[in-house]
Amino acid sequence: MSRPLTLHPDRLLPADPTTRAAARTLYESVAKLPIVSPHGHTNPAWYAENQPFADPASLFIVPDHYVFRMLYSQGVKMEDLGVPRIDGGRIETDPRRIWRRFAENFHVLRGTPSAMWLAHAFHEVLGIDERLEAGNADAIYDHIDACLKRPEFRPRALFERFGIEVLSTTETPLDDLRHHRAIAASGWTGRVVTAFRPDIVCDPDMPRFHADVAELGRITGRDVASWDGYLAALADRRRYFIEYGGCTSTDHGHPTAFTADLPRHEAEALFRRIMAGDAAPDDVELFRGQMLTEMAAMSLVDGLVMQIHPGAMRSQNELVKRVFGEAKGDDWPSATDYVHDLKPLLDRFGNERDLTIILFTLDETTYSRELAPLAGHYPALKLGPAWWFHDSPEGIRRYREQVTETAGFYNTVGFNDDTRAFLSIPARHDVARRIDCGYLGRLVAEHRIDMDDALEVAHDLTYRLVKKAYRL
Amino acid sequence: MSRPLTLHPDRLLPADPTTRAAARTLYESVAKLPIVSPHGHTNPAWYAENQPFADPASLFIVPDHYVFRMLYSQGVKMEDLGVPRIDGGRIETDPRRIWRRFAENFHVLRGTPSAMWLAHAFHEVLGIDERLEAGNADAIYDHIDACLKRPEFRPRALFERFGIEVLSTTETPLDDLRHHRAIAASGWTGRVVTAFRPDIVCDPDMPRFHADVAELGRITGRDVASWDGYLAALADRRRYFIEYGGCTSTDHGHPTAFTADLPRHEAEALFRRIMAGDAAPDDVELFRGQMLTEMAAMSLVDGLVMQIHPGAMRSQNELVKRVFGEAKGDDWPSATDYVHDLKPLLDRFGNERDLTIILFTLDETTYSRELAPLAGHYPALKLGPAWWFHDSPEGIRRYREQVTETAGFYNTVGFNDDTRAFLSIPARHDVARRIDCGYLGRLVAEHRIDMDDALEVAHDLTYRLVKKAYRL
Amino acid sequence: MSRPLTLHPDRLLPADPTTRAAARTLYESVAKLPIVSPHGHTNPAWYAENQPFADPASLFIVPDHYVFRMLYSQGVKMEDLGVPRIDGGRIETDPRRIWRRFAENFHVLRGTPSAMWLAHAFHEVLGIDERLEAGNADAIYDHIDACLKRPEFRPRALFERFGIEVLSTTETPLDDLRHHRAIAASGWTGRVVTAFRPDIVCDPDMPRFHADVAELGRITGRDVASWDGYLAALADRRRYFIEYGGCTSTDHGHPTAFTADLPRHEAEALFRRIMAGDAAPDDVELFRGQMLTEMAAMSLVDGLVMQIHPGAMRSQNELVKRVFGEAKGDDWPSATDYVHDLKPLLDRFGNERDLTIILFTLDETTYSRELAPLAGHYPALKLGPAWWFHDSPEGIRRYREQVTETAGFYNTVGFNDDTRAFLSIPARHDVARRIDCGYLGRLVAEHRIDMDDALEVAHDLTYRLVKKAYRL
Repeated sequence: MSRPLTLHPDRLLPADPTTRAAARTLYESVAKLPIVSPHGHTNPAWYAENQPFADPASLFIVPDHYVFRMLYSQGVKMEDLGVPRIDGGRIETDPRRIWRRFAENFHVLRGTPSAMWLAHAFHEVLGIDERLEAGNADAIYDHIDACLKRPEFRPRALFERFGIEVLSTTETPLDDLRHHRAIAASGWTGRVVTAFRPDIVCDPDMPRFHADVAELGRITGRDVASWDGYLAALADRRRYFIEYGGCTSTDHGHPTAFTADLPRHEAEALFRRIMAGDAAPDDVELFRGQMLTEMAAMSLVDGLVMQIHPGAMRSQNELVKRVFGEAKGDDWPSATDYVHDLKPLLDRFGNERDLTIILFTLDETTYSRELAPLAGHYPALKLGPAWWFHDSPEGIRRYREQVTETAGFYNTVGFNDDTRAFLSIPARHDVARRIDCGYLGRLVAEHRIDMDDALEVAHDLTYRLVKKAYRL
Repeated sequence: MSRPLTLHPDRLLPADPTTRAAARTLYESVAKLPIVSPHGHTNPAWYAENQPFADPASLFIVPDHYVFRMLYSQGVKMEDLGVPRIDGGRIETDPRRIWRRFAENFHVLRGTPSAMWLAHAFHEVLGIDERLEAGNADAIYDHIDACLKRPEFRPRALFERFGIEVLSTTETPLDDLRHHRAIAASGWTGRVVTAFRPDIVCDPDMPRFHADVAELGRITGRDVASWDGYLAALADRRRYFIEYGGCTSTDHGHPTAFTADLPRHEAEALFRRIMAGDAAPDDVELFRGQMLTEMAAMSLVDGLVMQIHPGAMRSQNELVKRVFGEAKGDDWPSATDYVHDLKPLLDRFGNERDLTIILFTLDETTYSRELAPLAGHYPALKLGPAWWFHDSPEGIRRYREQVTETAGFYNTVGFNDDTRAFLSIPARHDVARRIDCGYLGRLVAEHRIDMDDALEVAHDLTYRLVKKAYRL
Repeated sequence: MSRPLTLHPDRLLPADPTTRAAARTLYESVAKLPIVSPHGHTNPAWYAENQPFADPASLFIVPDHYVFRMLYSQGVKMEDLGVPRIDGGRIETDPRRIWRRFAENFHVLRGTPSAMWLAHAFHEVLGIDERLEAGNADAIYDHIDACLKRPEFRPRALFERFGIEVLSTTETPLDDLRHHRAIAASGWTGRVVTAFRPDIVCDPDMPRFHADVAELGRITGRDVASWDGYLAALADRRRYFIEYGGCTSTDHGHPTAFTADLPRHEAEALFRRIMAGDAAPDDVELFRGQMLTEMAAMSLVDGLVMQIHPGAMRSQNELVKRVFGEAKGDDWPSATDYVHDLKPLLDRFGNERDLTIILFTLDETTYSRELAPLAGHYPALKLGPAWWFHDSPEGIRRYREQVTETAGFYNTVGFNDDTRAFLSIPARHDVARRIDCGYLGRLVAEHRIDMDDALEVAHDLTYRLVKKAYRL
């Protein structure tokens, strides 16, 4: 006998009745607001081509590193979950068998946000009312598979059903934005914009850096062997992204928050060393840091909002990287220093009222110690929401508790789902709204804020701040 | 229509009814206890001269970096808030216009302790019953302005109304304590003492270090070119502070917690290098560290309690520092290491039962990892309360939750308001009492402490521990 | 009139009625499960010889550094608490006078886990119904002393009364396990196993390192002057521990989490330098790091589970170390870096499904930033419970809140009491069960997990995970 899957209307709200009543009032006022998704990694081809999703396993398991990393940690082989090997070696290709393995191990996700996101997708989106387990794996597989073949489960229909007002994907400067152009040309009213993520041509540690810079030159017709030409090529592509992709933001995923502000001739000499493959040991980090400042300078010209996502050491499991490639759940946060690392950038541009730099962190210790004090002072700085491992009920709660008292609500920018898991988008936004309203409900119940003010703040956190910060 | 401003009698107490009832019982037992304010930055001239405060803007906005930093972060210019420029350049001088700008942006303080402190001062002290906003800015300005002209709003009357038993200001060794002497000579019964803060003559990075050391020599008649004379001059001024300022404590605001305990001849040689302007790169930090140990040695002789406030990188916004000067809301906490940095001092004096060293931190990660283990062992160490950015409801709660289990209650020293905002003093002490009683109320509700013991602890945290630790 | 000592049946459960009801249901389902104590420091001679404990002071105060450190921090001399001096100098030897001093200062433990553990031992184990204070010190002393003379308070009787299914002690490789062999030979059914802790012969900073390595050679008949002989000797002792001590785990208490994976010839050369007393400055740390990798390699062969307890700077108070020796409450946690330090070990063995490495930390900042992401990926890694200073209600709660969302429940391994205080064992396990059930109860009350799933998880956290992880 299987166990019922339900979504309680008060889920994630604090249990104390006074607090819950306040939180519920707040949540009800924002629950149905449109979703603004200013940063994420869904595939724009989905919206351009509007093809059905293939099958339950390739929708929920194979691309979701939150899910397969946890199963891997418990001894399940990635091959058995259908994660492709670089060498094309044998892996499980039957989606139903992958699904069964997932179902057998579903309990290891208990207590994680993945469990909640999946519950929301299964129940709300797909109408499933039993908890997944070995015994009902096949029945649930069949149910989902049948759904996916129906028109109302195609990407555009779901986009509309989810109430997405605008959604950003993320592309590299080499992308021709064909999918965004196709969406625009299609007459579909869904708004899908791009974000400009230049790491592959700004971070010399990227595996194809030199080839990609050369390609950047080819696309733009600029002489990328020169510092001026390289910068001009980047500026060209930013303009292209604005014009053809509705782009309003850039994104920078550096290993640290280090920035530099070199005199022009030193920056130029550094660029030459990098391009000549003649870099000194610290040059790569220095170049990344200089490029953040260059990007900020361009943002002052073209108005793109700048996002910095620092502090992830990526693809750290040598075996997994060799066999399965990058981004396979083996990315580790490490201690991040914002106050020293950002100083060059902030000394140069921190006081600019027309610039917006949105900071993220994987190091929660920096919320109250560094990020909130910085954002509570510099006009150019705002704080992005709880990120990646911390995009979770406890993580979002800690973020509000540790950030608000020093940065206030108005130096934050609402929620990012930051996901490649399309069906989790409404779930993630719903979790954030519930936790934010739970936090505000506690402030109301503790008489730290009046309900009328809290209602305004809830609306701001859900809708207004993200639109304003991302210029959407 | 304006919105009502109220202060709920249960504000800041946990919402769960059982916990709130226990917290309320505890809070009621300490709510009316006198305020002991052992560390702060109010101006002793206020109590000496007892002149009226000038106007609402210069009382609440211009000097309060908590307030103007937040408005600055949201794009308001500091000039428009009346913050003086070093170059004497044009700024807003009409306090009413400053006040209006403040009122228009008041909502950005939601969720911050400043909002609560201001609500308390407006409602409790000034009798305002509407929330400040653009529409009532003038009316509230007029109300406050009229209050300030009345005798019961002069500094001494407020001091008495606030129930302050004793309050400490903070002066440099070059101060002649004229205000403290004037208070003593005036016959007024209010007790205002000083604290000895020697950073300007102990930290070679201070901008006027050499001139101030020379002045120290002039005042004391000591040969401050010699190590012995310099130390003797400092000991002289400590005695002067004790005799003429009722001083019971010193205060040290170093960038790190680094201490040193050099052999006499090395300390002397270091001093000579510093004075000769011939310091090696690490000498400045070494000298600061050595001076903490020298100050501890003097404390063993003269009985002054030692406060260490480490870990702030001050005045980090180059533009703001150049235009407006120091302490303009651009001070950043950074990661602080106590276990390695304090070892020389603790090896020398940590086991002294007659010495009290009170440690503060801006790095909350050290509460459970370093500070509580240290204070739970060394007889000389006590922990100061949550400081600066962390002097807030969530900050004080985290402090108790992270410190108590390893350091106990009895290695803490009650509350410091640490403020230059005179009207916020009762608000800040009230917040601390409420959060402490909320924490204790939770322990009672969870049957971790009995109510009779909790009542004793609440009294200790509010009144007895601070008097004992600061020898007041 | 003394104050009653009671243990409320709902103690430590959250106060909110809905949450408490859920937590109580969960707690009642696990409260009576057997105690599995996979890591601790009780004396195996107690169970082998089954002699009465000597007196209240030598049972509760003299060996408990949690207790005497707190009294020491409040100005009580260690000599007056009967802590032996290395030089044999005069200390208090009358246990009753020690007990009185303890009783006079008992209030300084308020709010600490020691207060709760002692309350549990006094009330539950010894039947005391008054809170200890100066006025009843003698009466309570007499009561405990009388208890200890009765057969039902001898170690084996208490072991059975406590419901201990299996308990591990910790021994060095030089131990002959005579007590474990005596227990086995005695016919007593209590299961007491050993853990293999090789620090004294793997950490060249240990005071008797060279002598102890020589002794290792003597015991095993191996040529420990050679790298191969040294490793073989360690493998021999591991086999001996398995055969004669029921050993299933090793334990490694290094100052950092640093690991190394040197080529064989480099490891051999490093070993020769260490043994020749010819070590370069970084060699000691490098050797410790290499030995963790060597131990993991041996674990793959003999199946011992590996525990790493890094990050304690031990015996840091020079005066206390000189007068009283090691482990006298002067051990300081410091910031620990897992992601960089463990990489060599994880690159070598992290993907092994047949290896279990259990990580502990004293640096709570690593829970969400490093440990949970690592444990949520590597098959070989599991997270040990909240350790030492953090084995407390707030500490365990923070552990669950910060670990679960990224590592899940199933990469944790239940509770360790890790104690040398025998009478605190049931108290500590009870605290952990209550806090875990409080956490789960909150998830239920917030509709984040269903009660039927929570009941399974509660059973897993209390009993099944520890048995599986430690192979007990």
